[in-house]
Amino acid sequence: MKHESTPERQAFYGVLDSHDLAPLWEAMATLVTPQPQSACVAASWHYERLRPLLLEAGALITAEEAERRVLVLENPGIRGRSQITNSLYAGLQLILPGEVAPAHRHAAAALRFIVEGEGAYTAVDGERVTMHPGDFVITPSWTWHDHGNLGSEPVVWLDGLDVPIVNLFDTSFAERSATKSQFADCAEDLAASRYGSNMLPLDYEVHGGNSPLFAYRYAPSRAALERLARSGQIDPVHGTKLQYANPATGGYPMPTIGAFLQLLPAGFNGAIYRSTDATVFNVVEGDGFSMIGEERFDWRPRDVFVVPSWVPVSHHTNSESVLFSFSDRPAQKALGLWREHA
Amino acid sequence: MKHESTPERQAFYGVLDSHDLAPLWEAMATLVTPQPQSACVAASWHYERLRPLLLEAGALITAEEAERRVLVLENPGIRGRSQITNSLYAGLQLILPGEVAPAHRHAAAALRFIVEGEGAYTAVDGERVTMHPGDFVITPSWTWHDHGNLGSEPVVWLDGLDVPIVNLFDTSFAERSATKSQFADCAEDLAASRYGSNMLPLDYEVHGGNSPLFAYRYAPSRAALERLARSGQIDPVHGTKLQYANPATGGYPMPTIGAFLQLLPAGFNGAIYRSTDATVFNVVEGDGFSMIGEERFDWRPRDVFVVPSWVPVSHHTNSESVLFSFSDRPAQKALGLWREHA
Amino acid sequence: MKHESTPERQAFYGVLDSHDLAPLWEAMATLVTPQPQSACVAASWHYERLRPLLLEAGALITAEEAERRVLVLENPGIRGRSQITNSLYAGLQLILPGEVAPAHRHAAAALRFIVEGEGAYTAVDGERVTMHPGDFVITPSWTWHDHGNLGSEPVVWLDGLDVPIVNLFDTSFAERSATKSQFADCAEDLAASRYGSNMLPLDYEVHGGNSPLFAYRYAPSRAALERLARSGQIDPVHGTKLQYANPATGGYPMPTIGAFLQLLPAGFNGAIYRSTDATVFNVVEGDGFSMIGEERFDWRPRDVFVVPSWVPVSHHTNSESVLFSFSDRPAQKALGLWREHA
Amino acid sequence: MKHESTPERQAFYGVLDSHDLAPLWEAMATLVTPQPQSACVAASWHYERLRPLLLEAGALITAEEAERRVLVLENPGIRGRSQITNSLYAGLQLILPGEVAPAHRHAAAALRFIVEGEGAYTAVDGERVTMHPGDFVITPSWTWHDHGNLGSEPVVWLDGLDVPIVNLFDTSFAERSATKSQFADCAEDLAASRYGSNMLPLDYEVHGGNSPLFAYRYAPSRAALERLARSGQIDPVHGTKLQYANPATGGYPMPTIGAFLQLLPAGFNGAIYRSTDATVFNVVEGDGFSMIGEERFDWRPRDVFVVPSWVPVSHHTNSESVLFSFSDRPAQKALGLWREHA
Repeated sequence: MKHESTPERQAFYGVLDSHDLAPLWEAMATLVTPQPQSACVAASWHYERLRPLLLEAGALITAEEAERRVLVLENPGIRGRSQITNSLYAGLQLILPGEVAPAHRHAAAALRFIVEGEGAYTAVDGERVTMHPGDFVITPSWTWHDHGNLGSEPVVWLDGLDVPIVNLFDTSFAERSATKSQFADCAEDLAASRYGSNMLPLDYEVHGGNSPLFAYRYAPSRAALERLARSGQIDPVHGTKLQYANPATGGYPMPTIGAFLQLLPAGFNGAIYRSTDATVFNVVEGDGFSMIGEERFDWRPRDVFVVPSWVPVSHHTNSESVLFSFSDRPAQKALGLWREHA
Repeated sequence: MKHESTPERQAFYGVLDSHDLAPLWEAMATLVTPQPQSACVAASWHYERLRPLLLEAGALITAEEAERRVLVLENPGIRGRSQITNSLYAGLQLILPGEVAPAHRHAAAALRFIVEGEGAYTAVDGERVTMHPGDFVITPSWTWHDHGNLGSEPVVWLDGLDVPIVNLFDTSFAERSATKSQFADCAEDLAASRYGSNMLPLDYEVHGGNSPLFAYRYAPSRAALERLARSGQIDPVHGTKLQYANPATGGYPMPTIGAFLQLLPAGFNGAIYRSTDATVFNVVEGDGFSMIGEERFDWRPRDVFVVPSWVPVSHHTNSESVLFSFSDRPAQKALGLWREHA
Repeated sequence: MKHESTPERQAFYGVLDSHDLAPLWEAMATLVTPQPQSACVAASWHYERLRPLLLEAGALITAEEAERRVLVLENPGIRGRSQITNSLYAGLQLILPGEVAPAHRHAAAALRFIVEGEGAYTAVDGERVTMHPGDFVITPSWTWHDHGNLGSEPVVWLDGLDVPIVNLFDTSFAERSATKSQFADCAEDLAASRYGSNMLPLDYEVHGGNSPLFAYRYAPSRAALERLARSGQIDPVHGTKLQYANPATGGYPMPTIGAFLQLLPAGFNGAIYRSTDATVFNVVEGDGFSMIGEERFDWRPRDVFVVPSWVPVSHHTNSESVLFSFSDRPAQKALGLWREHA
Repeated sequence: MKHESTPERQAFYGVLDSHDLAPLWEAMATLVTPQPQSACVAASWHYERLRPLLLEAGALITAEEAERRVLVLENPGIRGRSQITNSLYAGLQLILPGEVAPAHRHAAAALRFIVEGEGAYTAVDGERVTMHPGDFVITPSWTWHDHGNLGSEPVVWLDGLDVPIVNLFDTSFAERSATKSQFADCAEDLAASRYGSNMLPLDYEVHGGNSPLFAYRYAPSRAALERLARSGQIDPVHGTKLQYANPATGGYPMPTIGAFLQLLPAGFNGAIYRSTDATVFNVVEGDGFSMIGEERFDWRPRDVFVVPSWVPVSHHTNSESVLFSFSDRPAQKALGLWREHA
């Protein structure tokens, strides 16, 4: 609604301004919109173009100097803010053989989705896991974490963080460890043994909203999707899709970021869908394209693309495809804000 | 950490830029700070200066033309964004005798704290409550609500909304009602009878995180604080302080905004405290001052002041005082981000 | 189903018996019945007959010698087991002026509903509340509690306990206090101030399933029912009925026993209802009768009657009536066993 | 406490009796005991003696005639009540090649732990799983279930049910299906694919307290214990022990019965422990003995033994051993009654 501008009103607005006040009625239309009006846009990054740049970064700066050698994927609609959506950060991180990304912790929660390479590990609060392509790994808020590459090839993963959420709430904390790398006194995959087999420690008590299981392996996730797909459980929008879960609560792995894996059969022509959680996709297998709004985004393995809030999207495949994705859905649901429409 | 700038690196950054990429290591220090570094500042608004401006607004625009006739309290550190903290909106709303603020609904959740005047009502999803000074009223996300003044004097209340949170998540929705005012077919205070007496409807089931009780009266809240204070329950930081609760869950009244009422004895010299939830205070009774960081803010009844995230604050009174306050604490706790330090 | 009895089978059953074994097929029909087949029956106790017996008990044994001077209401269908239903105990307790029922605690949870007399108190974990007719008071599992009568008239209340549940699970514990009466260092109704006004202590954390509010007053409960009834909220089965709630969770006051208060208008002819939670009623006001199965039970103030599991019941009034009731519904719901049919 | 018996009191007790009343003070010592005083006793059943009896039962009655061909393990302390503890039922069920145990459902919840044989299946609400020795399978309250043996050898499993709990609450319901066997239209292990891989269906909502995963396989459970044991996680009481969990909540598989699997190294001499949940053990691997109270119970694979509430127990092994166990712990915890002491 447009309000009449009179000289009296304009003069009054000047007075208000001098008192750190503003007339709501002049701002309300932009503050409270009938539908989400994101400045973010749909976008994609092709891995074949990203990979040489990552390797060039590897030549220009060490993991240690960079602390984290990451190319941030910036949403073209909001450049300069290190964000892929209005609430999330994403980047591709490279770690070369022999390198260590030193231990630190921060209020921001992070996920990793392994894109390429064998031999790297992540250590979380003293426990170390080796990562393989397709694995989904979390480093929840305020957990110590470091990464290293003990193998012989470059390793690349997609990082997703809730930095914009943490900063909206003015709740950023961060700390560097005195020691570069956590002493990993634990056997590999202890958390998987304790929490990952549909069993839990005796009289386990939940503290906070983070999953005690911090590595979700690609092989069993992929196999579960395949069995479901073979049984005919194929959704017209999502194909066969599951969300990663905290085995101790059934909730999302972390309170701010949810993650998903979906299998689309060859020749899939998905129905149109939209939801308020802008979503970042990474292609694991297959090739196809997604219609995001009116625009077509072709994708192949390891490509990244982003669907903004409330923009209609449909997925279409040539070959059988697997898509990993993540969004802020847990936060939106916890705050009563999430909507979807199929 | 500052990284060496070489011509190669600068050239590389230019290439990255053309691919919607950015080097994390150049931005990380500002993205992930060791402690909250809010652009918001401490500030106060004295009601004796606000009141004439509110009445002038009443003369310049009708409630109906304005839809909501509100003077937005803008944090001096982030002017122009209609925010009192980095995550919350606050304003003072005036409604004159005979006026109606027409029915609408929006994804943003709102609270009202009645500052002055008798005779106004708020209707929420078809149920109407008359509001008195000191009452705390909520209009949760996506509930229809309208306000009216059936009395003979101006009525002013403090509005608090989570608009910045809704907009961070790109989840804004809003709708105007075809009818200006909701037909209130319900007896007054039906919700109070159903939910407000430590009893609940038979086999009540919770849906979502909003309190079904939407008006919290000042008199019983004040009386509870007084009884506790007389029993000697006085905290060195907070005096005698309670939080408003959802009687059906024990949680906060709404998932994004919590509210508090505290009684400070005359001559109270509070200990220093800080927390990550920037907090908006409204003085109900008494007079005193608060030290926010190094700055002193004197206050008297109906004044508003704001304490930014993680800035140390202490309260000091001349006379027995009652402070209402609200913050985004429920959201921070749900997302695992809240911290305090006493 | 009846199975053929052959000599071979009988001989085999004898062998089984010597090995602490039994053939399921001979017992299954009585173990797993198509519908609840309670040994409990409908019954009522008229207060005009109970009162003289209570006073006679008062003459024959002191509260201190008895530890608790209670006449147990034994269900006529299962005499000798101190039970009013298959899972609950009920009795009427008398305490005379000047007497103390000494402090003890036990795993069994107890409720009190005050039937007659002024001047008695219950102390729970060091906090004391004076009780008035119609008040509902809880002493949760393992809380220290004692009772005393500081007034000048006999005080009688209805006790309800979950003793049969505790004993089914073989989880009985009990302890007597070294001191007869708890030193009550707290102001009266501190819990009411802390938890009873739709507010809670700062950042309150729930521990266990017991309400921190332990006295629910009759006056506000009665008033809430009256306001609802006047607004026309009258259920064909229940009239106007609410359940007592734990203000910190919205759950039942204790994990094993729920309690209810209902207002029935004069001339009410309730519809037939049944549920699996056998229910004990106490008449607070009014007169009428209830059809339980085929049998009619007339009632007047202070009478007690019991409705067994799954037996159809309907309530009928002459004058406006108020009924208090309690059952094991919280336990049945927690264990996934509760059913109702209206 | 013993109360003096006077002629007046005796006469009064007679009058009380005629009014369906009883003096609490005469019964209180047996109703409310200082510690659990179970009529149940420790006991064991050796499989080498059970097996011939099971096969003899197989010759004397068909699965169809018996509906369920089960030898009930009756606690020697409470013979004749079809109970192994005060709150639980246990039995060994035999199903021969080609047989079907026809479809029914009941309020009582059941678990199966496969003791011997390949080729049998359980179908739950239309989904069928093949069972292997060591698998743990649930058929929650009111789910349709039938069993069949498609293999060529006898199959035996341990049944555990909460029949005594259901009957205490007078909540028994049961129904036979018109068709003997459920048409299994689902692929095998669909539930495992949907819920068993630390992933869940999109926006999964929990309804009730039963696990949607109904078969827990021995191999991965055993492997998880082995990995933990190798890492040195050996508890002095329990060895390496995990509880089966509902992957959608982290809770127990069913609201009334919890189940556990533990690995004890060779030569283990466990510390003494007691808890209020009487526990039924089944030996999967290894041999050793348990001290229950003062009594020693030797065990070998497939033996069953039971530890009553609050009786001290310690486990001792010759060879590396695996014990499966179940108890009513979830019910006791939900009702606030569970205690343990190590």
